[in-house]
Amino acid sequence: MPTHHFQPTHYHTTLGSHEPVLRIADGDTVITTTVDAAGRDARNEQVTPGGNPQTGPFYVEGAEPGDTLVLELDRLVPNRTYGYTSTMVAPNAVEPSYVPELPWPPERDEWVLAEWYVDAGAGTATLVKPETKLGRLTLPLAPMLGCFGVAPSGGQAISTGTSAEHGGNMDYRGFTGGVTVYFPVFVPGALIFMGDGHALQGDGEIAGTGIEISFDVQFTVHLRKGKRIHWPRGENADYIFTVGNARPLDQAVQHATTEMIRWLQKDYGLDAVGANILMGQCVEYDLGNMFDPAYTMVCKLSKRILKDILNA
Amino acid sequence: MPTHHFQPTHYHTTLGSHEPVLRIADGDTVITTTVDAAGRDARNEQVTPGGNPQTGPFYVEGAEPGDTLVLELDRLVPNRTYGYTSTMVAPNAVEPSYVPELPWPPERDEWVLAEWYVDAGAGTATLVKPETKLGRLTLPLAPMLGCFGVAPSGGQAISTGTSAEHGGNMDYRGFTGGVTVYFPVFVPGALIFMGDGHALQGDGEIAGTGIEISFDVQFTVHLRKGKRIHWPRGENADYIFTVGNARPLDQAVQHATTEMIRWLQKDYGLDAVGANILMGQCVEYDLGNMFDPAYTMVCKLSKRILKDILNA
Amino acid sequence: MPTHHFQPTHYHTTLGSHEPVLRIADGDTVITTTVDAAGRDARNEQVTPGGNPQTGPFYVEGAEPGDTLVLELDRLVPNRTYGYTSTMVAPNAVEPSYVPELPWPPERDEWVLAEWYVDAGAGTATLVKPETKLGRLTLPLAPMLGCFGVAPSGGQAISTGTSAEHGGNMDYRGFTGGVTVYFPVFVPGALIFMGDGHALQGDGEIAGTGIEISFDVQFTVHLRKGKRIHWPRGENADYIFTVGNARPLDQAVQHATTEMIRWLQKDYGLDAVGANILMGQCVEYDLGNMFDPAYTMVCKLSKRILKDILNA
Amino acid sequence: MPTHHFQPTHYHTTLGSHEPVLRIADGDTVITTTVDAAGRDARNEQVTPGGNPQTGPFYVEGAEPGDTLVLELDRLVPNRTYGYTSTMVAPNAVEPSYVPELPWPPERDEWVLAEWYVDAGAGTATLVKPETKLGRLTLPLAPMLGCFGVAPSGGQAISTGTSAEHGGNMDYRGFTGGVTVYFPVFVPGALIFMGDGHALQGDGEIAGTGIEISFDVQFTVHLRKGKRIHWPRGENADYIFTVGNARPLDQAVQHATTEMIRWLQKDYGLDAVGANILMGQCVEYDLGNMFDPAYTMVCKLSKRILKDILNA
Repeated sequence: MPTHHFQPTHYHTTLGSHEPVLRIADGDTVITTTVDAAGRDARNEQVTPGGNPQTGPFYVEGAEPGDTLVLELDRLVPNRTYGYTSTMVAPNAVEPSYVPELPWPPERDEWVLAEWYVDAGAGTATLVKPETKLGRLTLPLAPMLGCFGVAPSGGQAISTGTSAEHGGNMDYRGFTGGVTVYFPVFVPGALIFMGDGHALQGDGEIAGTGIEISFDVQFTVHLRKGKRIHWPRGENADYIFTVGNARPLDQAVQHATTEMIRWLQKDYGLDAVGANILMGQCVEYDLGNMFDPAYTMVCKLSKRILKDILNA
Repeated sequence: MPTHHFQPTHYHTTLGSHEPVLRIADGDTVITTTVDAAGRDARNEQVTPGGNPQTGPFYVEGAEPGDTLVLELDRLVPNRTYGYTSTMVAPNAVEPSYVPELPWPPERDEWVLAEWYVDAGAGTATLVKPETKLGRLTLPLAPMLGCFGVAPSGGQAISTGTSAEHGGNMDYRGFTGGVTVYFPVFVPGALIFMGDGHALQGDGEIAGTGIEISFDVQFTVHLRKGKRIHWPRGENADYIFTVGNARPLDQAVQHATTEMIRWLQKDYGLDAVGANILMGQCVEYDLGNMFDPAYTMVCKLSKRILKDILNA
Repeated sequence: MPTHHFQPTHYHTTLGSHEPVLRIADGDTVITTTVDAAGRDARNEQVTPGGNPQTGPFYVEGAEPGDTLVLELDRLVPNRTYGYTSTMVAPNAVEPSYVPELPWPPERDEWVLAEWYVDAGAGTATLVKPETKLGRLTLPLAPMLGCFGVAPSGGQAISTGTSAEHGGNMDYRGFTGGVTVYFPVFVPGALIFMGDGHALQGDGEIAGTGIEISFDVQFTVHLRKGKRIHWPRGENADYIFTVGNARPLDQAVQHATTEMIRWLQKDYGLDAVGANILMGQCVEYDLGNMFDPAYTMVCKLSKRILKDILNA
Repeated sequence: MPTHHFQPTHYHTTLGSHEPVLRIADGDTVITTTVDAAGRDARNEQVTPGGNPQTGPFYVEGAEPGDTLVLELDRLVPNRTYGYTSTMVAPNAVEPSYVPELPWPPERDEWVLAEWYVDAGAGTATLVKPETKLGRLTLPLAPMLGCFGVAPSGGQAISTGTSAEHGGNMDYRGFTGGVTVYFPVFVPGALIFMGDGHALQGDGEIAGTGIEISFDVQFTVHLRKGKRIHWPRGENADYIFTVGNARPLDQAVQHATTEMIRWLQKDYGLDAVGANILMGQCVEYDLGNMFDPAYTMVCKLSKRILKDILNA
């Protein structure tokens, strides 16, 4: 299958039906780069305005509404050493009466950054500043894509600050290299976008950032013609998972749970009662983000359990 | 330290300032039993009405409002082979428009049960009925307490169907044997209650049950005099964690997150900026339950990371 | 029918199965008083600790679980001139990032009060202090009960700071004199509680107070034997209404809406489609409170429209 | 000032930076029409696909980001006799366990309509079918715009199915003829859109429709240069009001409340404490819709009270 090397020259801060930058086919691989959330590239130079600017869109030949796009995140690697995070948990992640206790900057609408030294070779990120009791806190890298997806339906152009059925700014730490993601296709060509790489991130992205950084990215696409799904799905070595994006978190759980029940019944052949019993005792949930206008919850099932069931 | 063997003769379906069944001291250990959520004991006989009936309350000598109760869950073991779960995910856990698709029983207010054979020796639970595509699904046991805590403040008697600052029906699968839980003390003697054992449970208790079963329980208490906390806290081998109980999930996250920031600053000596940076990149969340009137979210931090910080 | 004059000597800060202070019968009228939310009486003297202390409970002969209690609020009149409110909107009623902009007192856990002169004869409340750009703002009285209801089920004792199916701290400005309120009966005698009078209040009680004041109260009770309702209902000259108490507001709306649909179908004889069409185009909602642990939303239908339908 | 007569030839189902259909100036009046939510015009002919198609956008000369657009809704009149509503309350507006009790059509994804005869001269709407216990229910008209607003920021094209800071599908029954609405300007020319007329509607648009109908519309625009607001505002004869669009309702209240406090302090010259005291006792809230992806709550203050304060 062909491998495309694509060097972006411009970026988008909405996911919409924008002019494709490259046309690719089922089975193709793309090697490209993403800038950080602030629009800075591998040299840490500002090449586009901030706000999770996206590389793409990539047009997948033959993709039509009602299909499923299979996106294999082959490789996600920070391509510079400078990363940054915020220094304050978001006000919506703490009790309302605690908000004034947060370490607000002197001017409340300022944005004070912490800086991290990211060593992709060593696989670590080290806090460089500010000086705190954390010292030179060093954490293992867990690179992930914060914002990616496909063009939404109906001529919408949805901000890279939020998310919905088409993906977008889900900020889920499970979107690492090696993961396969499934998106509903809403427009011809699907139109793949990606950006907002994080060297690592806590659950919930409750400070509004992971360690924000530019990425080298490699991905491979496949098409499932005529396969209709409602919300993003994914799988890694251990789990299949579904993604719900909405507020409040309860509604995100509802979307993810419903999509998983559908998956179990339509694709794994479970009866309704079986699917419900299984979900009740075996489901796991991850919190993607609780920062963006739409929050993200992920519903997971162990592949080992599913394999046992199918083999029985 | 003394070990008390206590055989309950009656149970409570509220956590409140009820007459103590036993007075114990800082350092004491209690060996006792709990009935299942439906009020059935180790012989699977109905000994009290259902609704998460609680063993206790145990009065801890010297405990006063403003103290912290340390509750070590030494041992939680199912003491019979019969367990049950529901066969339908709760309507509030799926999209509202999907609710009619759930496998409702013919009479909608019925409650159809699945039965499990629980083998504590083998460490497994096996689905016995109904017949579904799951067959004889066998899962590893992970026994946990669904509902436990202390008496709340102000003369309240809070239903064992819900939860708040005092604990209660949190249905968090992390409350396993070996875990230490910290509760704020609201009344003299703290008044410890426990019940609603689950042989295992999925995140969110989205079917409204774990595998419901009676337990043999051993726990040990300690007191932290004059140590004031706001929400339940806990720790296991790998994590410290805080628990928020509220609706929607967002508010449960807010309570748990705020309590963790307080913990980091007051007990681990972190400055506010350090605590906020750490939370942003290292926090993890678990979903306790999304079934009860109050939902439960758990905020976790890795003890290894904290150890690295304190040693640096 | 007898009229009872009852002078309270003690108060409760939970609604629960407490010892009745008076036994009354279907059709009886009670004339009594309530203290303000802080426990101060008509002379503005502290007679009991604060926290919406309740007069009662009144035991209604013959009331049993499954009945409906009819509570006519005949007369609610402030019985002193001193009223108070808070001076800050609650943090949960504004955007999280706006919370630090609120007029916090120097010590954040202080509670700064505004004082009002309440003239029941003139029917006005006048702001006395602090000095603000509002000057001597004078508002028309609209006296209402903030917290009242019946004892809840299952031996619960629910704080007067919150609300549920049994009523409680609903803080709805529609609970004025002349209104009839219907409560489900959960315990023998129903056990009526009342307190927390407000000389007037904004929607949502977003500052956490109305103009808090002590009341002279007159009410009359009736019983509807065997009539089962799920949530508080009410009616005034113009509307029938139902009350949902929960968080978030969405869930409060769900309870109130569901109860109204039931009411229309069971008591007004509407078919399901008719009830649904009517609700869709004619329903109105009021916001009771968005301050307490459980929020309150009220679902209303015009009695004139209902009369037209029934007469057609 | 000029009056423009504009006959639309195409429609939009997103609010975005689309090609203007007409350029108008501060003070200009436009007389035009809107199709109904399903894309049907005054002759009840399908002229465009459904989904709240919008007339416009109208480009206001001189409008720039950071300005406020003043939109006077001079006249909103149904221009045909056929109106329709749904026959079922939306699943998200009732308790989850009640959802199966709703009058679902035989095929659950069908959409069964009720038909109304709208007599603009008589000022009434009469239910024509289906046959229900409502008979020929006749209601007074209260025509209002369901979906209107300006183009959002950042190149977004936001579906006419939802709402945000730019307006959109707010479905608030207060947007009647005679009301003045203020929108933040996000793009040059502001770009005004409007559609989705309702002959009348209940609070919350809980059935997902008002009485859907095509409109004759007249509006007049003004500009407030350099006047920055955050959320839509409005005023009628009796109230000033602010509009918050978000989920859950709690967050919509937060936006509306915060915007009102800003308004009182910046434009009415109130001090923070004064504004907070006033809000606490005098605020009113309306429920716009609880159906769309973003819900709408409206915060209101009486103009008479404000006048008294300003004159004092």
